[in-house]
This record gives sequence, structure tokens and C-alpha cells, in this order.
Amino acid sequence: MERHFDEELRLLKEKLLKMASLVEEAISRSMKSLIERSAEIAESVIKAEEEINMLEIEVDETCLKLLALYQPAGPDLRFITSAMKINNDLERMGDLAVNIVQRSVDILKQPQLKPLIDIPQMAKLAQYMVHDSLTAFINKDADLAREVCRRDDEVDKLNDQVFRELLTYMMQDAKNITRAVDLMLVGRHLERIADHATNISEDVVYYVKGITIKHHIEEKKKET
Amino acid sequence: MERHFDEELRLLKEKLLKMASLVEEAISRSMKSLIERSAEIAESVIKAEEEINMLEIEVDETCLKLLALYQPAGPDLRFITSAMKINNDLERMGDLAVNIVQRSVDILKQPQLKPLIDIPQMAKLAQYMVHDSLTAFINKDADLAREVCRRDDEVDKLNDQVFRELLTYMMQDAKNITRAVDLMLVGRHLERIADHATNISEDVVYYVKGITIKHHIEEKKKET
Repeated sequence: MERHFDEELRLLKEKLLKMASLVEEAISRSMKSLIERSAEIAESVIKAEEEINMLEIEVDETCLKLLALYQPAGPDLRFITSAMKINNDLERMGDLAVNIVQRSVDILKQPQLKPLIDIPQMAKLAQYMVHDSLTAFINKDADLAREVCRRDDEVDKLNDQVFRELLTYMMQDAKNITRAVDLMLVGRHLERIADHATNISEDVVYYVKGITIKHHIEEKKKET
Repeated sequence: MERHFDEELRLLKEKLLKMASLVEEAISRSMKSLIERSAEIAESVIKAEEEINMLEIEVDETCLKLLALYQPAGPDLRFITSAMKINNDLERMGDLAVNIVQRSVDILKQPQLKPLIDIPQMAKLAQYMVHDSLTAFINKDADLAREVCRRDDEVDKLNDQVFRELLTYMMQDAKNITRAVDLMLVGRHLERIADHATNISEDVVYYVKGITIKHHIEEKKKET
């Protein structure tokens, strides 16, 4: 027996929210592994990624099935194609959280370079961006989506700050270099997680308003 | 008058091939800017990205339109959803080429650290991967797509090599640090371009064979 289309959409939303919460948890745990210097917590992030990957495949297959069976048009069509894109971004974020803990495993083998302040702050911002981009999608909230896009600048600024600070550590003492490089990469991974949340939010604005805001098309149109 | 569906698909293929050739050109030029130490060539990559971005939006809108108007099923549906994903990967590659030239603009302000051998080699490999992943898509060639995925390991290995070599430069002399970090980032951007070509190839295998090879699902199924 065929499940009703609306019921299928509801399940699809649930799966995306589940993925997002796994990603948020992965980001938070990746920081915890760094701060508490725990390889065990790092390991748990790698385990959780498998679940995200499986969900990605499920969501993708569900979307294809819905397109094939129901041949939706209008907002439903846009919802499903947006879901496919969001799914992809969430999966990449899961990968990036794993990249962070791969670095943290290296970092834990060495004495602590410095107390971590900006990096956990970036992680927190990125985590909220993931959460809010999905909320914006589910609630069709274009304003929230736009706000998430704006927050990306804050993460970028923090990352530049982290980058410059770590450069000085490296210059001061060659013994700091490998640890500083590792932390730089953690910063970059977090920055990219925030980029993916921004992608999602751009897709949400397109889904809700039919307006393309990526590549700053709006500003460009104004300029010309 | 409505264009025939097949004609629309042909145009879609053409646009994706055009994007891929712009991306290949951008990778090649990003290396040229580094090797010939030319800020002008770097600038041309930034210009070309705008064209890639515009094509991305066009392809996305075409795909949505085709889904809405023709409600395709079976292979045509999978072709279009694959095209949407490939489109996304190509656009990200364009971004990464810009990231490379942003680094190279920094690098050009300083004296050359070392002759570049492995990085241009990585770029060449990545460029072929982009080209072959699109050829595999257009020709429905799953074997070629799988081969592209295998080549990703080679790029990863080269990147590890580059990374380790640059670390030694940094340890030797603090004056090398900023230039070495810049080159490390160039290496990472190239590695990520290769990752996107791998994503495309994984999508091609799914499109042609209906088999999921990403996340090494095949091996995992064999193990259990």
C-alpha cells in the first residue's frame, strides 16, 4: 500500500532534522574531544558519521522515489529538490566534523599549545547556524535563513583571527608549528561547516521566495 | 513554443560540459598564476568564476523547469537529479579555484619558497578527474567513473607529501612559515577539487548502474 504523499513529506522532514541534530552533536563533540582532550569522544564522532551517511542515502532515495511516484509540481517540487541539496550539505558537514576529530586525535598526542577560546566559539556559532538553517527550512522562514547567511561573516572573521594568532605562535617557536597547523585546519573545517549552513539558508530563501541570493546576485542586479 | 524535451536535455548537457571546461581552465590558470608568478592570470580566474556561477543558476533553473514541465521518470529523472548534483559540485570547484588564486596573490608578494613540482602535478590530476567525470556522465560510462574515484587516492597521497615537505620548510626557518602555510592551503584546495570530481563520479555510477558506491557502502555490505 502506498503511503500518502504528505505522510512521506513529513517523514522526509523528520529525517533531515535527525541528520541536522546528529551534525550538531558531532560538532559539539568534536570540540569536547579537543577541550577535554579525549580520544574516546573523538572516536564517537567517527561512529556517528556512519549514521549520517546512511541517512543521506535514505533521504536521497526517498526524494527520487517521491519525484518518480508523485511527479509533484510547484512548492512540493521545490521542497523535494531543496531537500536533496540540504541532504548533501548535511552529509558534508558530517565529513567535516570527522576531519576535525582526525586533527584532534593528532593534537591530543602533544602537550596543549594554548587554551582554546575562539575555536569553540566558532564551533558554537556554526552549530547554531546548522540548527537555524534547518528550522528556517521546516518553517519556511526566509528571514531566519537570511540571518543565518549574515552570521557567516562572524565565523569568517573569527577564523581569520585564529589564523593570525596561530601564525604568531608558529613564528615564536618551531616546536609550536605542527600543533598550530592542526588547529588552523580545525578552524578551516569549522568555517566550511558554516559555509554549508549558509548554502542551506540560501536554498531556503530560494525555496520560500523564489529569489536567488547566492553569489550575491541581488547586489549585482542592483549595481547594473 | 515549448522546446522538445530531448533538445532541452541536450542543452543541459552542453551547459554542464561548458561549466566543466571553465573549471578545468580555472585550475590550469590558477597553477599558471603560481608558476609564472602572474597576478594578472590570477585575476582572470576570479573573472571566470562569475560565468561559472551564472551557469550554475541557469542549470539549476533548467532542471527544475524540466522536472515541473515534463515530470520525467526512470533514467531521465535520474539524469536530471544527477545533473543538479554535478552542477553543485562544479560550482564548488570554481570557488576552490578562486581560493587558490587568492592564496597565490599572497604568495606572489613574497620571494619564491621553492620550485613547485608536486602541487602542479596534483592540479593536473585534479583537472583530468574533472574532465573524465563529466565524460563518464555524458557517455554513461560507469567504468571510467570508477577509475576517477580510484585516482582520488593518488591526489590525497601527493597532498600528504606536500604537507609534510612544507612542514619541514617551516621548521627550518620561521621566515618560511607564511609562504609554506599558503602553499599548504593551495594543496588542500586541490585535494578538495579532486574530492568533488570523485563525488561526481560516484553520482555517475549511481545514475548508470543504480549502485551506491559512496561511503564505501559496497565494501561494508560485503563485510556484513
